[in-house]
Amino acid sequence: MDNKKEIYLDNAATTRAFDEVGERVRDCLCCCYGNPSSLHGKGLEAEHVLRESSEQIAGLLKVSRDTIIFTSGGTESDNLAIFGVAQARKRTGRHIVTSYLEHPAVLSPVAQLAEQGFDVTYVEPDAQGVLHPEDVAAAVREDTILISVMAVNNEIGSVQPVSKIAAACKQVNPQVLVHSDAVQAFCKIPLFPKRDKIDLMSFSGHKIHGPKGVGALYLSDPRMIRPVLFGGGQQKDMRPGTENVPGIAGFALAASMMTNRMADADLYQRSLKKQLAEGILSIEDTHIHGAADSSQMPDTYAGWGAPSIVSASFRGVSAEVLLHALEERGIYVSSGSACSSNHPKISDVLKAIGAAQDDLSSTIRFSFSDMTTEDDIAETVAALKELVPVLRRFTRK
Amino acid sequence: MDNKKEIYLDNAATTRAFDEVGERVRDCLCCCYGNPSSLHGKGLEAEHVLRESSEQIAGLLKVSRDTIIFTSGGTESDNLAIFGVAQARKRTGRHIVTSYLEHPAVLSPVAQLAEQGFDVTYVEPDAQGVLHPEDVAAAVREDTILISVMAVNNEIGSVQPVSKIAAACKQVNPQVLVHSDAVQAFCKIPLFPKRDKIDLMSFSGHKIHGPKGVGALYLSDPRMIRPVLFGGGQQKDMRPGTENVPGIAGFALAASMMTNRMADADLYQRSLKKQLAEGILSIEDTHIHGAADSSQMPDTYAGWGAPSIVSASFRGVSAEVLLHALEERGIYVSSGSACSSNHPKISDVLKAIGAAQDDLSSTIRFSFSDMTTEDDIAETVAALKELVPVLRRFTRK
Repeated sequence: MDNKKEIYLDNAATTRAFDEVGERVRDCLCCCYGNPSSLHGKGLEAEHVLRESSEQIAGLLKVSRDTIIFTSGGTESDNLAIFGVAQARKRTGRHIVTSYLEHPAVLSPVAQLAEQGFDVTYVEPDAQGVLHPEDVAAAVREDTILISVMAVNNEIGSVQPVSKIAAACKQVNPQVLVHSDAVQAFCKIPLFPKRDKIDLMSFSGHKIHGPKGVGALYLSDPRMIRPVLFGGGQQKDMRPGTENVPGIAGFALAASMMTNRMADADLYQRSLKKQLAEGILSIEDTHIHGAADSSQMPDTYAGWGAPSIVSASFRGVSAEVLLHALEERGIYVSSGSACSSNHPKISDVLKAIGAAQDDLSSTIRFSFSDMTTEDDIAETVAALKELVPVLRRFTRK
Repeated sequence: MDNKKEIYLDNAATTRAFDEVGERVRDCLCCCYGNPSSLHGKGLEAEHVLRESSEQIAGLLKVSRDTIIFTSGGTESDNLAIFGVAQARKRTGRHIVTSYLEHPAVLSPVAQLAEQGFDVTYVEPDAQGVLHPEDVAAAVREDTILISVMAVNNEIGSVQPVSKIAAACKQVNPQVLVHSDAVQAFCKIPLFPKRDKIDLMSFSGHKIHGPKGVGALYLSDPRMIRPVLFGGGQQKDMRPGTENVPGIAGFALAASMMTNRMADADLYQRSLKKQLAEGILSIEDTHIHGAADSSQMPDTYAGWGAPSIVSASFRGVSAEVLLHALEERGIYVSSGSACSSNHPKISDVLKAIGAAQDDLSSTIRFSFSDMTTEDDIAETVAALKELVPVLRRFTRK
């Protein structure tokens, strides 16, 4: 890497940790390094950090501390939620409701369950990438055990009306459990799983300027799942293994810092989104997926695009070519979802919202954080205006 | 915590991270923070750290980089090895061979499999806590798919002749896979899984002055297991989720630093063990579990106690009472295995080696690192000599 300026617009893939988080993790690694399971003072010190961290995160969600289980990240949280409920409830029923908007960390476990004989209904979103509560409720049956609906989509930023979906589904079948992957939503939009009757909710540290390798699962009642990993009994047997105390402490700190500035960050990023979307739409033959303008969006968010994500197609340009052309100018964006593997493939999310054929291979995701500046966006728009017409000349037949 | 001196003799539970590891983790969190799956330069930078780290760890084991899978720690590595092989091979056979010396991260998954109809043989160790190759081989059948034998026991420090066990078992059934939990052995005794025909081997970061929340699994051939977690395709689909790049980089650094000083650390800790064991045995009615003296142990290690662990019983004293009396003097030790849950319970390992009834509740584990000093041991011996007779007066009937 040379020293040129970097404009990092891939915050939905991962974020730079806050300096304070880096310090906190380092301090925990080298100072309060005890094992929370040890009975002596050094263990109690670590146990105290653990308790404080879970209280912090629980406090932000307005739930009690004992409903938070720490995991190695969003993927593990999703797997634990889905396999955990399926294992615990398979004698009650074997029907699951979800949609193709979900992250692979939900869709892949669900596909595994389908191979084991579970029945899965994929509800169709509208053209903005939003699921309608009545459509989800219509899929619920007597043998439905689980609904999995993400809070904010990672590719196009659509915000789901999760609480309305939960209410509508529980009216049809009060026994059904509702899981929400809130990895892209946590500390960015208000989340109150208990109030909203969401039974399970997944979180990740590294999407909120916290550490990689740590996440959490909210469980309204730990008895409703079976664990996926087995071992030394930590976290009430729901997730064994020595707790990642430094990672958890850094995660809780990042979550607190993010939540403290949530309202300001929200307004600020709405203005960045407006600036970028208007800039992109001033280039001919472009399209914004999902809700382009969140500057006027209501407090409920649902049905609107998250302020931090802009998904745009530049018709006639290969997304990968544009990505690398931007990269040469130090602008880092994503094609496809990019929090999955290196292999670019056609996005299931874009297909699910009925995106035009030409859009599937020409879509770029720009994702912000509070570290993004208006200048970053202005430079990005200027680069796009220059690059897109040139690349079109080369790639169009 | 007040500022009194701390003598940390619980390094088998967890270790203080090296300062360099703390720095490395912090730098990765805040500088090379990209997502290795991202296609741009910031992603490639993280991907590069990941590749370098796996090369470092693979190099220490003399295996190729693509045989290393990163996990969230030893528990996940053990679960992935055991469930992974069981899922992949259940049509070939459903018999597993292990022993009660194993860590709960092995015994608990095996118990789950037993509930699912797998058949498990627990081989009996000798009184030193060592499994004899011929005894393990005698348990192998035509339908045996997996042997799981740890490299160094976490409670009493006995070193297993894993390579001889693997050879003996494969002579009976060449199809059998051998897994070894090497969490307490990695970077402390030489491990060459490929040379020794060990098919799967588990490692953990926080036992070697590396970060918590990170571990690895060596897999001679990734196709021999099925994954436990499913998601975005990272690590060739064997372990999805955004890689914990900072944790992995810190883990690789700690492993390199530990390996560089392995020979010196080994000699040094043998002398500490001799000093402590002699001190303890000078108190009447004490007993050292496993091999008391590793000062003369041969290079093969097998059958001898690891230099870093001393397990001793102080008959007529409750281990928990002694633990807290030592804690008041700033000396941190462990009762039982202490890398499992807070609930003290009778040790399966001590029962397995046929420890006397009185020893079961009076055993303390002392575990060193290179940060332990001779003065620490001298102070500990002095404290024991003072405390044990006093506590005996109070607790003996």
